Amino acid sequence: MLQNAGRILQAIPGLKPIVHCITNYVTVNGCANIVLACGASPIMAQNVAEVEEVASFAKALVLNIGTVDNVEAMVLAGKKAKSLGTPVIFDPVGAGATSLRNRTAERILKEVKPDIIRGNMSEVRTLGGLAASTKGVDAAAEDSAGIGTSAKMLRDIAKDLNAVVVATGVKDLVSDGRRVYHIENGHSMMAYVTGTGCMLSTMTAAYAAAAGKEGYLAAAIGATAAMGIAGEMAYEAVMTLGAGVGTFQQKLFDAIFAMDASTLLERGKVYEDTV
Amino acid sequence: MLQNAGRILQAIPGLKPIVHCITNYVTVNGCANIVLACGASPIMAQNVAEVEEVASFAKALVLNIGTVDNVEAMVLAGKKAKSLGTPVIFDPVGAGATSLRNRTAERILKEVKPDIIRGNMSEVRTLGGLAASTKGVDAAAEDSAGIGTSAKMLRDIAKDLNAVVVATGVKDLVSDGRRVYHIENGHSMMAYVTGTGCMLSTMTAAYAAAAGKEGYLAAAIGATAAMGIAGEMAYEAVMTLGAGVGTFQQKLFDAIFAMDASTLLERGKVYEDTV
Amino acid sequence: MLQNAGRILQAIPGLKPIVHCITNYVTVNGCANIVLACGASPIMAQNVAEVEEVASFAKALVLNIGTVDNVEAMVLAGKKAKSLGTPVIFDPVGAGATSLRNRTAERILKEVKPDIIRGNMSEVRTLGGLAASTKGVDAAAEDSAGIGTSAKMLRDIAKDLNAVVVATGVKDLVSDGRRVYHIENGHSMMAYVTGTGCMLSTMTAAYAAAAGKEGYLAAAIGATAAMGIAGEMAYEAVMTLGAGVGTFQQKLFDAIFAMDASTLLERGKVYEDTV
Repeated sequence: MLQNAGRILQAIPGLKPIVHCITNYVTVNGCANIVLACGASPIMAQNVAEVEEVASFAKALVLNIGTVDNVEAMVLAGKKAKSLGTPVIFDPVGAGATSLRNRTAERILKEVKPDIIRGNMSEVRTLGGLAASTKGVDAAAEDSAGIGTSAKMLRDIAKDLNAVVVATGVKDLVSDGRRVYHIENGHSMMAYVTGTGCMLSTMTAAYAAAAGKEGYLAAAIGATAAMGIAGEMAYEAVMTLGAGVGTFQQKLFDAIFAMDASTLLERGKVYEDTV
Repeated sequence: MLQNAGRILQAIPGLKPIVHCITNYVTVNGCANIVLACGASPIMAQNVAEVEEVASFAKALVLNIGTVDNVEAMVLAGKKAKSLGTPVIFDPVGAGATSLRNRTAERILKEVKPDIIRGNMSEVRTLGGLAASTKGVDAAAEDSAGIGTSAKMLRDIAKDLNAVVVATGVKDLVSDGRRVYHIENGHSMMAYVTGTGCMLSTMTAAYAAAAGKEGYLAAAIGATAAMGIAGEMAYEAVMTLGAGVGTFQQKLFDAIFAMDASTLLERGKVYEDTV
Repeated sequence: MLQNAGRILQAIPGLKPIVHCITNYVTVNGCANIVLACGASPIMAQNVAEVEEVASFAKALVLNIGTVDNVEAMVLAGKKAKSLGTPVIFDPVGAGATSLRNRTAERILKEVKPDIIRGNMSEVRTLGGLAASTKGVDAAAEDSAGIGTSAKMLRDIAKDLNAVVVATGVKDLVSDGRRVYHIENGHSMMAYVTGTGCMLSTMTAAYAAAAGKEGYLAAAIGATAAMGIAGEMAYEAVMTLGAGVGTFQQKLFDAIFAMDASTLLERGKVYEDTV
């Protein structure tokens, strides 16, 4: 799996795919920079008068509801991208935190049907509940599932949502509804930099653009491992320098910029779970 | 006072209070990162359809009019926070610069009644004038007050506004309407990084959330001293490295991340003024 | 020409001109910081209820359509600035990429008549076509011009638009409609940091504010050379440190902060073209 991911990563600079992002104003700069750092080309465009046109030439689309803006633009761009077979990555920031976010996430799931979803475990479980409830399934039962059953739960959610789903946390989980992988890279200091999740979703879009439809699972695993490894490398640099979170953020971009297939293979800790 | 501030700072990571920010798109990323760096948890949410819900679970609220957006959301969230006893911090960016900003600041003062106000001296004096004028007091007379009388003036403004007021500048002043403190930390290079004021307001919210209502004065003093000390430490690092403002910004975050009660006590220069 | 540019640069901190920016949410933080780093004072204000008031006291205005927001505010502020003789710098981000961007750029050209335009060669050629088409000139013929004729083409576009035009790329070109200069500073790593173009446009505004109307050409050349030199210096620092794009971005700000007339003269590679 990591060898596939490495090939995808190496293909990005040659393709220089345009990644269309409709996202939040908090972390948008980091999202644009992470796309550049891995060799792709970002375009942030959310005006309803142009998003379909942009989606028609972009090679991947990211929908991020971090500040729940531009939802109409997200639906318009999302439908256009789907109609063209362009991968749509959805980041359901704050799903579960407010009813507006739940309604918005539900709308995007229904109307756009994203190909890849990346959130933290709580957000992903909320999405699983939303998907389940619309089919009359007992969401409450799913919500009570413990962490021990999280791999199976994620597989079921991915199956329900018909998407590759990435649930990040202390341990990252990725599933396409059939197989489940967990990734043991990363560092706790990543939680002290705003936007590492948003940046991972955006980088996943760059990988997906280079991977093609059959490679979405490998793209999601590769991007998640790459971000985790970059976190480890940034932490090592910070320790060497006796520095803190400001330096960590900078070194995270340095590490993504330097990431290559051999680093992914050497440092990636990706394991398939039996579920 | 600094010992109280130190206890507040040490309490933040254990409480990990959610700080709700309705702010401007220029400095929002730094505001989120500064909240994380001192151990709290930021949520940037300004959609009118959810701000009251977010304000109902957040432990502090920041209203920043840097680009004079989302004023309805600010009033809605502010009223909700006040009704729950959640501290509301107001940053009147650019008050005095345009009539729109004056009207907006006046509306927030009247309708929300913030607990803590943080601005530069010019903005704070404008607020004092707005408050005064609504009560028929001679604002012009107040405005002509010289720098020598600034401590007394700040005390009167804080009393009028019934808030803890922080006026930052070469020397920072803090008053709760009874006592006045000045803080001699900081470095002139801070003026070369956009958003140090916005970040201080946001960090003050994290301190206030951990302090509780009786501790707002100590929270404001502690956050102001911490930011000033971080500026000094960042400048020292920049001098060692032979660097400039880009490095300074990074080192400022490193210093806030490393800030603890003993550093506050050792390096804090906080003095009570007799007024 | 570089000596003029050096004098302009040296004048900025004494004047501390206010640079009014109506720009995009992706790169706005870097734009504010670059203005500060060269000694000017940024104000980001886009509310239609205040932009004319802000434009009336600002010393330069930047209009950047990176996310095609706030177009009404741009036109209002632009007309006010022009009526006062305040320099207006236009950054036509993405012109040529969507029809919305073309219509918006055309509107700003017609209704505001910017003094300085800064874009990449593709954007500038699109503007040339828009200007030409409105006068019935054969835009298609111009569009087919090769890179060998780019100096002459830029001169004609600048003449048509009655503006100083900066076209950045591997080689940067600047023309006021009569003379054409090319600048050979810069480094390819600049393309891996989002917003270097937006930042150059904003810094050009600071230079133009200090230059006065007769100095717009020297201001544009000086800012472009300064940004290119900063890119070279940042790259040198990154090589010394064995770092990547995160560090590069930080060092770019360090270099702009340290930039002075003698560095401009020593390292600037500015040549007049014969056209």
